[in-house]
Amino acid sequence: MATLLSPLLIRGTEPVPLLEALGRVLAEDVVAPIDLPTFRNSQMDGYAVDTASLTAAPATLPVRAVLAAGDGVVAHVPGTATKIMTGAPLPTGADAVVPVEDTVPVEDTVPVEDTVPVEDTAAEGRGLRVTVCRLPEPGAYVRERGSDIHRGRTLLPAGTVVAARHVAALAAVGLTHVSVRTRPRVAVISTGSELVPGGSVLAPGKIHDSNGPALAASAAANGALVVSVDRSGDDAEVFAAKLARAAAVAEVVFTSGGVSKGDFEVVKDVLGPRGAEFVSVAMQPGGPQGTALVDSVPVLTFPGNPVSALVSFEVFARPVLRAAAGLPAVEPETRPLSTGLSSVPGKRQFLRARRDGGAVVAIPGAGSHLIAAMATADVLLDIPADTSDLEPGELVKVLPL
Amino acid sequence: MATLLSPLLIRGTEPVPLLEALGRVLAEDVVAPIDLPTFRNSQMDGYAVDTASLTAAPATLPVRAVLAAGDGVVAHVPGTATKIMTGAPLPTGADAVVPVEDTVPVEDTVPVEDTVPVEDTAAEGRGLRVTVCRLPEPGAYVRERGSDIHRGRTLLPAGTVVAARHVAALAAVGLTHVSVRTRPRVAVISTGSELVPGGSVLAPGKIHDSNGPALAASAAANGALVVSVDRSGDDAEVFAAKLARAAAVAEVVFTSGGVSKGDFEVVKDVLGPRGAEFVSVAMQPGGPQGTALVDSVPVLTFPGNPVSALVSFEVFARPVLRAAAGLPAVEPETRPLSTGLSSVPGKRQFLRARRDGGAVVAIPGAGSHLIAAMATADVLLDIPADTSDLEPGELVKVLPL
Repeated sequence: MATLLSPLLIRGTEPVPLLEALGRVLAEDVVAPIDLPTFRNSQMDGYAVDTASLTAAPATLPVRAVLAAGDGVVAHVPGTATKIMTGAPLPTGADAVVPVEDTVPVEDTVPVEDTVPVEDTAAEGRGLRVTVCRLPEPGAYVRERGSDIHRGRTLLPAGTVVAARHVAALAAVGLTHVSVRTRPRVAVISTGSELVPGGSVLAPGKIHDSNGPALAASAAANGALVVSVDRSGDDAEVFAAKLARAAAVAEVVFTSGGVSKGDFEVVKDVLGPRGAEFVSVAMQPGGPQGTALVDSVPVLTFPGNPVSALVSFEVFARPVLRAAAGLPAVEPETRPLSTGLSSVPGKRQFLRARRDGGAVVAIPGAGSHLIAAMATADVLLDIPADTSDLEPGELVKVLPL
Repeated sequence: MATLLSPLLIRGTEPVPLLEALGRVLAEDVVAPIDLPTFRNSQMDGYAVDTASLTAAPATLPVRAVLAAGDGVVAHVPGTATKIMTGAPLPTGADAVVPVEDTVPVEDTVPVEDTVPVEDTAAEGRGLRVTVCRLPEPGAYVRERGSDIHRGRTLLPAGTVVAARHVAALAAVGLTHVSVRTRPRVAVISTGSELVPGGSVLAPGKIHDSNGPALAASAAANGALVVSVDRSGDDAEVFAAKLARAAAVAEVVFTSGGVSKGDFEVVKDVLGPRGAEFVSVAMQPGGPQGTALVDSVPVLTFPGNPVSALVSFEVFARPVLRAAAGLPAVEPETRPLSTGLSSVPGKRQFLRARRDGGAVVAIPGAGSHLIAAMATADVLLDIPADTSDLEPGELVKVLPL
């Protein structure tokens, strides 16, 4: 199966706007196209000074200008101060910022609204001055250019699953789009003459198709793009046609049903002559499994019981879909059992269970048709084939759903 | 702030198709509209029998019909067997299924393709018979109607965050849509004359707006619907107009910048006269915070430094957005520090850090402009105000990002 599905791992890339990149996976390293900060700027609201001129405190300096964030760069005049707001560019020649808390304005008669535009040296002329109470160290409250990241350095490595903080960094260097891995394209076909779509009234003997929506949702929840969800009865020609259509648009097709030992096994009947391999895996649920290639597209044929289909997905499809999408594998946990349980020896059992504090408790009922019961599970217990009885408190391998 | 934001918690509901319900939160209990299974059916491929007639084994029975999944219900004739496929309805009067593995066909000359339609009793006439090698218990391999869930019982409770297994259960009972909580509608306005959008060339003193995309992504990642992302300079009228437009479409507005103690604080200047409350929270980063109501819509005013804005979101906005969306709170973890660190006493510190195996390691650099560095974090360390030094190995509270 690994070889069959390996083409899924070779993925193209697509550019997406930053806000659509959430949860997607970076296809390549993102290199910072600019320095951050892009220019030397103030970390505080305060006064830019040069420490070479300012050798004792307190000292009263003329205020040359007021700089807001967004203003351009001005030249510092040694021995003066420039009132500077957080984020405003440090005047060339200044090397420290004295926080406003460490200063006293000498002449406070000019109302705040009467702020002084950049390059307007009238502030000095109007006699604005400030007393610096504490001597700053060189570099104090100065954000140096490139101190967060230098242009050309890797901002985010390939494989990053994009979260809000990554969007922040990408936006900060001015990017609007980012290159992410394409999502594996998945098609789903559930089979069985008993299946009718949701919303319809059930004739006797019929059931609603749950495997189609369930496998589609499972694929979507694991990084795939679901391109087709279809349903087929037990007519071989109809199924073959639907399979061809699915293979034309998808990179992998999941089917459910038609792989058991009954008299009407449409998936086996259609794919068997085309070289499909059908095996009985020593696991419960989900024993009957098959693999095929249809028009060079891999097909995984899951059993039709709803719990079997979902467990098959978790065991066989989820790891490869996540790897293809670039998402991290779901790591198994180890937890103690709240209550004891029995397992059929000779087969690896995947029992539905729920986390219960630090422990885990099995959900009664092993029937692979118990889909409502499965909805109350949040993990699978992975019980080895050689295990038959487990005592309360024994540690078990737990696969988060 | 809790009172201000409490209207967000009262949410409407909207119906969505099952596949769009992934990750959404059920607004109300979903009650099973039908029994599951909807009819008594076979758990195995085998032979349906009545245990009252079948009292010894081996026993050879005439085969009356062949039932596939999807066929209607037929009447059982005591003393006969009906070949039955998994999921096919049990004939009325039969009470057990003998798995095909426990039987031997007596006359196997009829090819498998020549299957017998329902109600066609010719199978018996043609002399098809089966030998049952093991006596079944009453009820063996029979799935009773309603044994998974009974009509009228709660299939999924309100508050369920919909995952694939829930989609499976909802589809199984025939639902095509489900009622979910509406997402809180969020608008974001970043402020500052220094801000220019991504993709543009930076004039001296200008920076790319990262808070807009970052807060929008943060909101979207926590169950919100982002309805507007805007940017304003320091012009009060422009900001006021943008704020009014945001309040017209959103249930909560987040702003960044303009709340400090500088000379140009557009958010303070516009919202202060409208009754906004601006406070200095004893935390770093993210000290300057404010709240306001604009046209009855709550506004949270975050500081403008990118790290401060993101930390403010995590601390003040994320909990309420998740609660409004119905998503579970992000639970803090407790982990040992890999290396020691110092924290500024008197203020609760939120330091950027990375999980490192079971431990956590702080990321150097506390500057609230270090957004590229923050992108490498995956948690915040929540260091209490009364803590100044922490040794390697000390346990710290960790807030997953």
